[in-house]
Amino acid sequence: MPMPVSTPVIVINYKVYPGSIGPEGLTLSRLCDEISRKSGASIVICPPATELFCVQKEVGIPVWGQAADPVEPGGRTGHVTIEMLQNVGAEGLLINHSERRLQIADIEWLVARARRLGLHTCVCANNSAVSRACAALGPDLIAVEPPELIGGDISVTSANPDIVRSSVDEVRRVNPDVRVLCGAGVKTGKDVRKAIELGAQGVLLASGVVSAKDKRATLMDLVGGLQ
Amino acid sequence: MPMPVSTPVIVINYKVYPGSIGPEGLTLSRLCDEISRKSGASIVICPPATELFCVQKEVGIPVWGQAADPVEPGGRTGHVTIEMLQNVGAEGLLINHSERRLQIADIEWLVARARRLGLHTCVCANNSAVSRACAALGPDLIAVEPPELIGGDISVTSANPDIVRSSVDEVRRVNPDVRVLCGAGVKTGKDVRKAIELGAQGVLLASGVVSAKDKRATLMDLVGGLQ
Amino acid sequence: MPMPVSTPVIVINYKVYPGSIGPEGLTLSRLCDEISRKSGASIVICPPATELFCVQKEVGIPVWGQAADPVEPGGRTGHVTIEMLQNVGAEGLLINHSERRLQIADIEWLVARARRLGLHTCVCANNSAVSRACAALGPDLIAVEPPELIGGDISVTSANPDIVRSSVDEVRRVNPDVRVLCGAGVKTGKDVRKAIELGAQGVLLASGVVSAKDKRATLMDLVGGLQ
Amino acid sequence: MPMPVSTPVIVINYKVYPGSIGPEGLTLSRLCDEISRKSGASIVICPPATELFCVQKEVGIPVWGQAADPVEPGGRTGHVTIEMLQNVGAEGLLINHSERRLQIADIEWLVARARRLGLHTCVCANNSAVSRACAALGPDLIAVEPPELIGGDISVTSANPDIVRSSVDEVRRVNPDVRVLCGAGVKTGKDVRKAIELGAQGVLLASGVVSAKDKRATLMDLVGGLQ
Repeated sequence: MPMPVSTPVIVINYKVYPGSIGPEGLTLSRLCDEISRKSGASIVICPPATELFCVQKEVGIPVWGQAADPVEPGGRTGHVTIEMLQNVGAEGLLINHSERRLQIADIEWLVARARRLGLHTCVCANNSAVSRACAALGPDLIAVEPPELIGGDISVTSANPDIVRSSVDEVRRVNPDVRVLCGAGVKTGKDVRKAIELGAQGVLLASGVVSAKDKRATLMDLVGGLQ
Repeated sequence: MPMPVSTPVIVINYKVYPGSIGPEGLTLSRLCDEISRKSGASIVICPPATELFCVQKEVGIPVWGQAADPVEPGGRTGHVTIEMLQNVGAEGLLINHSERRLQIADIEWLVARARRLGLHTCVCANNSAVSRACAALGPDLIAVEPPELIGGDISVTSANPDIVRSSVDEVRRVNPDVRVLCGAGVKTGKDVRKAIELGAQGVLLASGVVSAKDKRATLMDLVGGLQ
Repeated sequence: MPMPVSTPVIVINYKVYPGSIGPEGLTLSRLCDEISRKSGASIVICPPATELFCVQKEVGIPVWGQAADPVEPGGRTGHVTIEMLQNVGAEGLLINHSERRLQIADIEWLVARARRLGLHTCVCANNSAVSRACAALGPDLIAVEPPELIGGDISVTSANPDIVRSSVDEVRRVNPDVRVLCGAGVKTGKDVRKAIELGAQGVLLASGVVSAKDKRATLMDLVGGLQ
Repeated sequence: MPMPVSTPVIVINYKVYPGSIGPEGLTLSRLCDEISRKSGASIVICPPATELFCVQKEVGIPVWGQAADPVEPGGRTGHVTIEMLQNVGAEGLLINHSERRLQIADIEWLVARARRLGLHTCVCANNSAVSRACAALGPDLIAVEPPELIGGDISVTSANPDIVRSSVDEVRRVNPDVRVLCGAGVKTGKDVRKAIELGAQGVLLASGVVSAKDKRATLMDLVGGLQ
């Protein structure tokens, strides 16, 4: 089993932006690593599947996959298995992101299999009822993200603080071992601070970092919100 | 809101067998109605979408849909909405059957919308962890069915009594208002009796009735298991 | 085999609007029937699956399904098979509508099976390359509809006449037995006339009729475009 | 544009077997490279997405992706874009493998985009009607594989030579620039020779190589069938 996920945490989903792959993706990864080292902040990065090998060789912070298919190794074409992610150095994975939603039986399967293989899991949920249901499956983390705010300019912590608060409450009631992140529109240290005030253990964000003009300044600001 | 689902209950999923549609499907529906009336047993039938109108006109027992798409009425082609089911007389619906699995956000959406429209819901689950997660979404019923036993000759109550018992326990812990059915391989009154001994409030079955040679005898036997 | 589809034709996809079901849907169906009878115009209507039985009993014009699942009758839950459509009186079906896109192997399967069962097929395509590929599968009709224009206010015949012309040409080259319709934004008799000038054998439309304020006037205008 | 695919060709789909990743996958890749170099035979290999970077650095033969999602770079999570494949050295990709079937509009999109980006494409088809339809989309190669024979012990060239012959004929009629491969159950040089006699330009195979006990002997035998 890898080290437990240190919280509070900033999880960065690279998605598949042009800047998420190749030299630009590597530069971003090294920057995250450097800032985590210097600040002591816990940062997890999720590069595209094809980039995992190169990225994990360059950094000391945890590298996760963005998704896995709910299948065992074998006669499958074009799939990404948990074993494939692990083989190139991933220590965890996102599950059920709103851009890659899964059937409930498949979420259960992936969470259980990742645990057995020693990988961390963060299951994404679109509202507090789904957060509650996902908590019953026992992942390490749940990230609640209202889909209509993803990629937008208003942080979930301002637009819908209640969804964060109620997810934290309901997840705790169902399974107190599961920690809650929030995401969607998160861009600044102020958003991170607000997330933590609402009871979250961190944030999941993507374009806020990957599409930022000044990535160093953005990351420094975000990390400041953890303190 | 229609009458609450009376339990213990036998829910019959007609699926789309040749014998589920047309005159044969109508005959089966009238038979279920007659046996329910005479025995006092609670029976719910789930004919194919195209048959709902004709069936519900002929019977007094509750008629449910087999599935609905998680979409609102509007510009959608080939979808079956909850409103469409309701318009032809359905009082409830199955959700997430193993032959029609859904994303978790869509299960949550369907359960909430059906409740608002006054329809009952039975969410299918493949194991006790998924039963537990689905209970957090608050449907009327959860039907636990190990997929590998569906359509087979050995009843879940013999092949895997633990999955029934543990689903009952875990659902009760998460949401005591949700009742549990079990299914897969159920064919006889003895299977029904065993299901109830294990804490279930009834059974969900399909081929056990629809493909039975002597449907009247089979139904009489099943109903006998409720007493 | 039912009567061949008489062309030029106006195919009306009811989708699942509130006005597509119940008494409103029946009224629309009777109106289409009356106008077809009086004008001699060929009109095909595609009500939602749950409404097919009631609609086909009321009208003489062809009634089609909006979609079918690519499966045989049997142990399937919530599916709509071609046999189910046929049992409630459908004489044909739409396949691969942009709101219900299918895998290519499944389109091939549905076209072949419908032909064997004696149902007509109209395969929808999003551009002329896909029209050409679908023509190779031998349906009765292909309806080319640029997805970005569906449900909008500008007819494909104005916004993109080339897509209609090139689909007609390419389909003819691959399989001259297949006739081409066009759709998306079609609302008026002028649009219908233009479609026919471009080489199409008619139109596929939905909201243009189902959401029209004055449905009789709209239908009369559309039908006028066929002459 | 990379060099045109040299035919006749042996395309090896690694799928996601345990032996497809890590050191075992690299050893297989080096072996394919060595045998291609020594024999002059054209071999294309398709490792899992996470392995592409490491494999392409080690070999001179073309490395392809097993699949791509039909999306542009951007705000997508867990997807594999054509750009991602290209960035780690892929020169082509499989499309619509029977274990990763796509909607027809998406096949058209991927073929067109890959061509624009300078990658080769091989579209898989399950029968000759689908081969014919896919030929209309203009990929470099079509691989016809009856799904029921995939992973089995009888080569398509013995079990169903007609499907190969008719695919070759029909593809040629629709688009003579498209070359045809066949697959499913192919394991020996004799199977390769038969494929070529039937008019195919090579074979697509997976377990026949990846699960072979003696991979060198198997590859030498296969390559022998090209002469």
